[in-house]
Amino acid sequence: MTRPSLAPIAAALSDTVPFVGPEALERRLGQTFLARLGANENPFGAAPTALAAMAEALSAGWKYGDPENHDLRLALARHHAIPSDAIVIGEGIDGLLGLAVRLYAAPGAIIVSSLGAYPTLNYHAAGFGAEVVSVPYREYAENLMALATTARRERASIVYLANPDNPMGSWHSAQAVTQFIDAVPPSTLILLDEAYGEFAPPGTLPPLDTDRPNLLRLRTFSKAYGMAGLRCGYAIGERQTIAAFERVRNHFGVNAVAQAGAIAAIAAPEHLDQVVQLTAASRARIAQIATDNGLTPLPSATNFVTIDCGGDASHASGILTALAARRIFIRKPMASGLDHCIRISVGTPADLDMLARELPQAIAALG
Amino acid sequence: MTRPSLAPIAAALSDTVPFVGPEALERRLGQTFLARLGANENPFGAAPTALAAMAEALSAGWKYGDPENHDLRLALARHHAIPSDAIVIGEGIDGLLGLAVRLYAAPGAIIVSSLGAYPTLNYHAAGFGAEVVSVPYREYAENLMALATTARRERASIVYLANPDNPMGSWHSAQAVTQFIDAVPPSTLILLDEAYGEFAPPGTLPPLDTDRPNLLRLRTFSKAYGMAGLRCGYAIGERQTIAAFERVRNHFGVNAVAQAGAIAAIAAPEHLDQVVQLTAASRARIAQIATDNGLTPLPSATNFVTIDCGGDASHASGILTALAARRIFIRKPMASGLDHCIRISVGTPADLDMLARELPQAIAALG
Repeated sequence: MTRPSLAPIAAALSDTVPFVGPEALERRLGQTFLARLGANENPFGAAPTALAAMAEALSAGWKYGDPENHDLRLALARHHAIPSDAIVIGEGIDGLLGLAVRLYAAPGAIIVSSLGAYPTLNYHAAGFGAEVVSVPYREYAENLMALATTARRERASIVYLANPDNPMGSWHSAQAVTQFIDAVPPSTLILLDEAYGEFAPPGTLPPLDTDRPNLLRLRTFSKAYGMAGLRCGYAIGERQTIAAFERVRNHFGVNAVAQAGAIAAIAAPEHLDQVVQLTAASRARIAQIATDNGLTPLPSATNFVTIDCGGDASHASGILTALAARRIFIRKPMASGLDHCIRISVGTPADLDMLARELPQAIAALG
Repeated sequence: MTRPSLAPIAAALSDTVPFVGPEALERRLGQTFLARLGANENPFGAAPTALAAMAEALSAGWKYGDPENHDLRLALARHHAIPSDAIVIGEGIDGLLGLAVRLYAAPGAIIVSSLGAYPTLNYHAAGFGAEVVSVPYREYAENLMALATTARRERASIVYLANPDNPMGSWHSAQAVTQFIDAVPPSTLILLDEAYGEFAPPGTLPPLDTDRPNLLRLRTFSKAYGMAGLRCGYAIGERQTIAAFERVRNHFGVNAVAQAGAIAAIAAPEHLDQVVQLTAASRARIAQIATDNGLTPLPSATNFVTIDCGGDASHASGILTALAARRIFIRKPMASGLDHCIRISVGTPADLDMLARELPQAIAALG
């Protein structure tokens, strides 16, 4: 039967998607998860004032949200002490990554990332016909100088770095990241994903620099601000680099409720502090549970703990599957060199009680 | 200063955006609008049960929404009596239009639309390097057979039709639209935008056909369902045509609150009926106000009334500007042959009282 042809780039894409959601896993398994510890979400939730602002915004939900996201950009500009035209708002970092790739990577362009880093970057690269050149991790951290050197050698359009890193939880100092930034050619756009930045120790995030045309800092309300389901992220950069997003973004894409919630969220720093403290306590307990079970937790500057299970990839997958059968959702790194690890996101005390109870049995079940 | 190069298609784009939002106009004018009658919104709002479902969903907003949008697709499948894999959910019709263009129009491809039709389609066409070939309206309606003939002649990748139409409010019968669909070559994808479909008289929307590979029907929760600020739309089509969206969509892009609200909204048909009745009454009153002022309202199957102001484009622009100065927000068609009209969206009785009071003065002010 004659049908419309897909454009060549789309025709070449596979049907694989970056992530299978926990809800899809629940449908496959035929049971719901009782502890949701796999999506790096924030179970401590948004600030009460942010929840109230969003509830209030619902009654005006018949109106389109402001396509310029003016009030949110202004609030962020004050929060970060930067100009508001150095900020673009998007439907989460995922959406902004897609737009950045579309803007700065022509078909056939090279994008440099780490082997096993955030797969949504690779999804967008393929989606716009770019090619990813991967650099292996070194001791569970992204290899900064190898990334910069590869970007230069490959004349890369884009280089991606997450600091702190997902899926490993590792991080580099602001000083090391600044050296990396300086080592990347000015013709290569640096996507510096700081989704987990609020959880990191002081001295992890370089000062904001809105004068460098090849640097975009990506931030989100999905992690420390507890609004993953609301879909709101932002990029900070030099004015002209940011202005380019106007050419391609979905202007009415950021929902009005998220905009209202985000404004309230950044006005509640005491809640953010509390979330960061609860997250640190939860990380410590996950690490203790891992140690109690003979596994090795890795240091983390995020809201998850990556755990070296000591065996091979199949052993780590076995633990993940055994926990899923016990109604606990976790994830694991997939790339060679990292795939003997599992990744457990922070949870409530009840979630972690369940983890402490079930993990020994899950390991024992592997024999 | 060396900076990252934009990809060729992005580099060729202008900085113009499809719409300036009313909030941006307010900031320019230095005063807020008291009657918001320009964005084809639904001031009667979402169903109370939908608002309640969204309020409830906020407390789970720390979780990412289901990337497969499973429950909403299932609810829509039941509602329309079609398979759930014939449906894809997106961040409003705007987002889905962008994805459809990206999937089915290669750079240099031809997209056929009407001259003066929904500009966001043109924005996305330019954004992916496609070329729009425009067909003039005929007597304020889209010229169905000319659209089909042009699509065939130009070997178009995509042809766009809104039924009912924005910005003119006109509509064609289901029978005429079916003839149009049959006349379009099977290699051309038909984007049939039915954003205003719920407002149209019976016999306007063709029966849903999920066997035709070159037809996508676009629907939204922004209009009759009163959820414009929540960002949720969907496309209905043949299974393989719909599946292609998996290759390029932002899987986590549709926020969890919108998904919950949309499910509740389609379970409240009595509210929808009430909105449709209130909308019809508001349209009738707008038409009466126009007539009282010597202007000619056009028939409408939407939630707005387009009004022939009898003069030229500059006269119509003058009325728009004079109303804005009186804190009433309306819009107008911009294309030649339509641009002597203004477009007024339905409002509350208080909104229309204000319109009735201010319109004579706005016209008089033009001299």
